[in-house]
Amino acid sequence: MNLALEEAQKAGDRGSVPVGAVVVRAGAILASAGNEMRKLLDPTAHAEIIAIRRASQLLETCHLDECDIYVTLEPCAMCAQAMSWARIRRLYFGAYDPKCGGITHGCRVFNHSLHVPEVMGGVFETQCAKILQKFFLKRR
Amino acid sequence: MNLALEEAQKAGDRGSVPVGAVVVRAGAILASAGNEMRKLLDPTAHAEIIAIRRASQLLETCHLDECDIYVTLEPCAMCAQAMSWARIRRLYFGAYDPKCGGITHGCRVFNHSLHVPEVMGGVFETQCAKILQKFFLKRR
Repeated sequence: MNLALEEAQKAGDRGSVPVGAVVVRAGAILASAGNEMRKLLDPTAHAEIIAIRRASQLLETCHLDECDIYVTLEPCAMCAQAMSWARIRRLYFGAYDPKCGGITHGCRVFNHSLHVPEVMGGVFETQCAKILQKFFLKRR
Repeated sequence: MNLALEEAQKAGDRGSVPVGAVVVRAGAILASAGNEMRKLLDPTAHAEIIAIRRASQLLETCHLDECDIYVTLEPCAMCAQAMSWARIRRLYFGAYDPKCGGITHGCRVFNHSLHVPEVMGGVFETQCAKILQKFFLKRR
């Protein structure tokens, strides 16, 4: 989660909402990414989508069965469903997102998906939330 | 929807599930794409995600407020939420998808999203469904 936090910080520094994601398999980091919506002018360029794409291309498969993902913020419905399609084994996320989250809030994607990862929320919650709070305070 | 059907056919020809999507603004086609999961080895490379990304990059904005999207199959939760983030105005889709759809089935993403496009389902439903049926019959 420390690397995900670093990616989040870098995303914030380039003006995107500071969220970071890391895909891991058997203790090895396969891919990490920050939110790049602003940089890439792509509304789908959330950290999770980019990290999943990079890991898939690295492993040359759409199925990341033995991979876990660490994200600093509760994923939205788009990213949650992407994790289901990619067959991610375990999702660890930091801060909860009552407004845009899709795991424990909103449409609760995994209540309806074919593949459902194990989920652990609130990991490093304080640190993950603090980066977001700082970012939005600055922009007000 | 005819162009979306052509994109679906091309996706099927390259071994991906035949789904196509087209983004349109004021009668002009901005972007079209077929499902490229297999070709790109990317579990997020659904037709809708690629078409939205291309349209955003063409217009140099993450917000496709005046754009409509035509898709041959009811979008999944990932693609539905991507449409919400992109602020797509109207979604026209062809065949309904009781197993993996996220609009009128599953987690019904738009019941929980901040931005909700207008939705019209069942457009050219028979033709859109036929391409999928043919593809899956061949693979059995």
